[in-house]
Amino acid sequence: MGVVTAAHADEGQWQPHQLPQLKSELKRIGITIPAEKLADLSKHPMSAMVSLGGCSASFVSPDGLVVTNHHCAYGAVQRNATPEHNYIVNGFLAKTRAEELPGGPNTLVYVTEKVENVTDRVLKGLAPNLSGKERHEQVESRIKALIAECESDKSYRCSVPAFHRGGEYYRIRQLLIRDVRLVYAPADAVGNFGGDIDNYEFPRQAGDFSFLRAYVGKDGRPADPSPDNVPYRSKDFLVVSAEGLKNGDPILLAGYPGRTSRYKLPSEIRFARDVDYPAKVASITADLSVIAASTLGNPNYDVRYASVAKSLNNVLKKTQGLLDGFARKDIAAIKDVQDAEFRNWYKQHGKGGSLLGDLDTAIGADMRATQQESAWLEATHSDLLKSARTLYRLALERQKPDAQREAGYQERDLSFIKARLTRLEQSFVASVDQARYAAALNRYAKIDPKLRPQGLDALLPAPNNLPALYKSTELGDTNKRLAWIGKDPAAFRASNDPFIQLAVRLQDSGMALEDRRKEVDGNLERVVPQYMEAVIAWKKSQGKPVYPDANSTLRVTYGTVAPYTPRDGIVKGPFSTVQGILEKATNKEPFNAPANLLQAIRDKRYGVFKDPVLGTVPVDFLSSADTTGGNSGSAVMNKRGELVGLNFDSTYESITKDWYFDPVITRAIHVDIRYMLWVMKEVDHADNLLKEMTIKYPKQ
Amino acid sequence: MGVVTAAHADEGQWQPHQLPQLKSELKRIGITIPAEKLADLSKHPMSAMVSLGGCSASFVSPDGLVVTNHHCAYGAVQRNATPEHNYIVNGFLAKTRAEELPGGPNTLVYVTEKVENVTDRVLKGLAPNLSGKERHEQVESRIKALIAECESDKSYRCSVPAFHRGGEYYRIRQLLIRDVRLVYAPADAVGNFGGDIDNYEFPRQAGDFSFLRAYVGKDGRPADPSPDNVPYRSKDFLVVSAEGLKNGDPILLAGYPGRTSRYKLPSEIRFARDVDYPAKVASITADLSVIAASTLGNPNYDVRYASVAKSLNNVLKKTQGLLDGFARKDIAAIKDVQDAEFRNWYKQHGKGGSLLGDLDTAIGADMRATQQESAWLEATHSDLLKSARTLYRLALERQKPDAQREAGYQERDLSFIKARLTRLEQSFVASVDQARYAAALNRYAKIDPKLRPQGLDALLPAPNNLPALYKSTELGDTNKRLAWIGKDPAAFRASNDPFIQLAVRLQDSGMALEDRRKEVDGNLERVVPQYMEAVIAWKKSQGKPVYPDANSTLRVTYGTVAPYTPRDGIVKGPFSTVQGILEKATNKEPFNAPANLLQAIRDKRYGVFKDPVLGTVPVDFLSSADTTGGNSGSAVMNKRGELVGLNFDSTYESITKDWYFDPVITRAIHVDIRYMLWVMKEVDHADNLLKEMTIKYPKQ
Repeated sequence: MGVVTAAHADEGQWQPHQLPQLKSELKRIGITIPAEKLADLSKHPMSAMVSLGGCSASFVSPDGLVVTNHHCAYGAVQRNATPEHNYIVNGFLAKTRAEELPGGPNTLVYVTEKVENVTDRVLKGLAPNLSGKERHEQVESRIKALIAECESDKSYRCSVPAFHRGGEYYRIRQLLIRDVRLVYAPADAVGNFGGDIDNYEFPRQAGDFSFLRAYVGKDGRPADPSPDNVPYRSKDFLVVSAEGLKNGDPILLAGYPGRTSRYKLPSEIRFARDVDYPAKVASITADLSVIAASTLGNPNYDVRYASVAKSLNNVLKKTQGLLDGFARKDIAAIKDVQDAEFRNWYKQHGKGGSLLGDLDTAIGADMRATQQESAWLEATHSDLLKSARTLYRLALERQKPDAQREAGYQERDLSFIKARLTRLEQSFVASVDQARYAAALNRYAKIDPKLRPQGLDALLPAPNNLPALYKSTELGDTNKRLAWIGKDPAAFRASNDPFIQLAVRLQDSGMALEDRRKEVDGNLERVVPQYMEAVIAWKKSQGKPVYPDANSTLRVTYGTVAPYTPRDGIVKGPFSTVQGILEKATNKEPFNAPANLLQAIRDKRYGVFKDPVLGTVPVDFLSSADTTGGNSGSAVMNKRGELVGLNFDSTYESITKDWYFDPVITRAIHVDIRYMLWVMKEVDHADNLLKEMTIKYPKQ
Repeated sequence: MGVVTAAHADEGQWQPHQLPQLKSELKRIGITIPAEKLADLSKHPMSAMVSLGGCSASFVSPDGLVVTNHHCAYGAVQRNATPEHNYIVNGFLAKTRAEELPGGPNTLVYVTEKVENVTDRVLKGLAPNLSGKERHEQVESRIKALIAECESDKSYRCSVPAFHRGGEYYRIRQLLIRDVRLVYAPADAVGNFGGDIDNYEFPRQAGDFSFLRAYVGKDGRPADPSPDNVPYRSKDFLVVSAEGLKNGDPILLAGYPGRTSRYKLPSEIRFARDVDYPAKVASITADLSVIAASTLGNPNYDVRYASVAKSLNNVLKKTQGLLDGFARKDIAAIKDVQDAEFRNWYKQHGKGGSLLGDLDTAIGADMRATQQESAWLEATHSDLLKSARTLYRLALERQKPDAQREAGYQERDLSFIKARLTRLEQSFVASVDQARYAAALNRYAKIDPKLRPQGLDALLPAPNNLPALYKSTELGDTNKRLAWIGKDPAAFRASNDPFIQLAVRLQDSGMALEDRRKEVDGNLERVVPQYMEAVIAWKKSQGKPVYPDANSTLRVTYGTVAPYTPRDGIVKGPFSTVQGILEKATNKEPFNAPANLLQAIRDKRYGVFKDPVLGTVPVDFLSSADTTGGNSGSAVMNKRGELVGLNFDSTYESITKDWYFDPVITRAIHVDIRYMLWVMKEVDHADNLLKEMTIKYPKQ
């Protein structure tokens, strides 16, 4: 892991229950909410925080009004947009609740209600001599039982994620609200101003916010979407402070960060830096150029792959940012020093034994497995094949009792699988998929045979046979694809569909890879927690609490509004302003700010949202808070827990924070509540929402 | 002119004698040298300022040691560099005076000794009814007489430039020192760190400084280069302050700014913006691509055209910067407002008459002439043709008594003409010149015939005849080229050399264009000074002094060390530091900083040059001073007149200052004396020079 980094003022994605340990830190930076209150999920403000599954959000009225990022509500906007009512381009505002639009099956609100430490129930009594795979499967089985027990009330979705790489397990119970409607989204040229060009960049002037509303049945419990449903009476909501913040002010940020790798070993960083990320960059770059070439000149194809390309570009920029960051600062060397310090401490204070050697062995096996998995991904890089594999696996799993099925293929997962198999139609064209798969098979053929899964080569189609496969498959048709759900494995084995056949043919090879992963993970899960325990003891001996890596669970981070120096002679931020919109406005995407917004700026109709220092309306701002993907939409609060912004991105130089938090350059990017309110008032006239929220305006 | 801009704190390239009018301004920003002292060219510090002809410099020891920019001493370095002693790459340091190297005929030092107002002698008694051309020629004739009178002592070079576009004339007498030697130049990768990529940019980490020494005969008077010469005993020199400056400190800057257009009319800005500059950008861009294509793959050609391309790129970036600046801020509209205010004032307080109408007429004629001149430049865009035209013109002028010859072709100009005709060999390859000329003739053919000089088309060679011309000309040979000097016009007319023939054939057309320019200028010189007089009266009524446009004469400007905001959310400067060199160092040109310099930074061997705020050695810094081309090498002084840096560039956003000084974004870029001294001490060990200079070190 290179061992935990020194606990710095702004580093740490803390589990709420850890906050009382940080009391003096919180006080030092000026947070006035008691740490004990922040630790209690049933109390304000934490009880106002929700997850959208991949994004974060918060309630801002007692009637289930939810605020999140524009890019988090994008699917709901897209789903409702038509050529006549282009809500993407023009934005959407429901002036009454009756006008609110269905968000669709992928727009969900999760309200975290309970978090229990279930470490004992997961780990206690595991036999010490299990193989990696056996251990992993026993843990999985106990987790499934814990989930099933928790989900006896169908209103809830439960999960048992590992913390500290398997040292602790918490069961999290979330109310799952499945009727979520679109209330308000500004125009794309506001919400996504700057687009991909400004992605991961600052100065930025994106108004990345939207509003949704959670609906439930008349009984107050989650229900399938229905016109009869009523707004969810949220127990808690955030008060909005239009006073905003100034440079140096403290902030609190709560949300659901996805994944970090802060505790990995120097060898793991080097593997990512020298092997895994460069391969990823090469593969995505090649895939993107295939998509570009095979959609060129066909606007219809282009639309289908726009979001695929956007998402690949985002991963590419992030991965390239990691490589650039590693080149800029030798993080592996920093971790070497920390690792050596830890090992030195461990010699004197640790439990001894073979731990450190076992750790290196387990990690080495993990790296080798990862390389085979990368090769597998190239070999199976077709959306049709992925669908076929999901369907066949589902059929196989359904042969077993539900509790014994592989996680992800249980009854509780079925609606998600269906939604995914349906959604494919929005981003699929057979000829493009064929071109991508042919290119991926060619890339696979160039991978060192030693790094490919054994026996896989012989099972794969030859690239020049692909036209025949794509010609005769029926899986491209959504109804025909969905019709496979519920069929038994024999039907698959009897099928003439070439992608179903291919999925059947690849099944054993895929399972072998999965078994290997389980073996590797089981060994990691045995060894890493012991290592983490030692690390935590080591940090404790220095008086430093240890936060676990992000794992999509609710976390709290704090920091201050702060500019940064990306390189010698330049200071960026902490604020961007509406003047920057005027500077960048070109009338061309992604800088095509709406005319009425530009006019309001030119007319200086700033109202109460004018910042006294900046003399204009702030748009986005930087803070030193510790965030990562998944924190999109997270509430940014002032010292009193009032909403002052939404997190939506990080700067390019911050990208390496997933591995190492460098307080000098790490900055999260937030949209300022004053810009949100200003757009709502001056540009979009969302007076109904301004009225619904509780807003504290600055004294005039 | 859009009329003079409001006299702002930092705007103004003041004639030294004007400084007493600005006493309170100087005091306000913290300058402690009395304005009266700054006004006196015979007193410290102004008597330490020198011109290099195109660049500025200053004495820094009583033994003629001169400090200027690296790019200003570049010719002297280049001239002495050989493959064995590559002083460009490795730098050069004379450890003793005997090791100092000859700077060559183009390295000259001009010491301004006397400035007299000769307006009356130039303008008094001119008949009111002269044509433009007659008036221009009478003025020229008087100026030539004033110069001849002044240059009776051959140690001096005199000039009589116009101020306020012809409202005032000053005779300037400069001691011309023609034995100037190279003393010290750091490696190109220090002096030109960042190269063309960082040209006009900040943050910048260029150590753009070099040292020369002026030598004179044993009698103390200027002499031709000779080993017997002795260092010039400079009457004055600047004390160096290693204490440096901090953000907000006042600075004084003295030098020889080349040309500005601050007093032009809105119509003239629009002409430049909409017609002249876009044409220039298109022409240079095309020319550069011809140079690139015709030197490709031949390193020898590439070397010859490297400095041509560098200089064209510099003009291109500057012109594009002007266009970008005009696009960013509507300077014409700002000038419209000022012009309207002036015209309104003039209605009530002016002398009336036809002045404003006459002005518009004269300016309209100027624009039309300018367009024909641009066409002419394309039609004659060959270095061989330019040489042939110079030679033939010289022969024609030499038929007249010296005083009647055209300025630039008098006896006093002969050595400069020879140096120019010789220097061509360093930047000429016949095949490249041919390709450039062919492309220029094709560009000429696309110009609207109405905008071409009348009758010119028929005189030009057809592009496909060029190979024959270049094959048979002997002008590409330096000796044969120089052999034409002294021949009479009949010899030219009898020559078979196709470029001599072409020059003879074009002579009448060229003279017609020149006559038209004289007519236009004569009219401008009659009308504009009356207009300027009114403008000065108008500004005087507001209590504001008026500085004349830059004209390569000695000026003083002042300002403060200040960062700036190039665009929303970013602050640049005011300092860059040696850390930026580490960040940019790639080991590849132009970021190939020397290994020993990088090591000194890594070792933090900052010594006394460490800035207490920055914690490291500053490299370059920004100030709000008002500079332009020609100010390269200008001494940047602290409030006491001690040397704290050298001016060497401006930021990209500042480029429009040639037309309009916008105090918000205009910043000059200076190299910090602390970096210069640090490089001299830690990197190049120039201890002899550190000892020779008078340096005030900070208290430890």
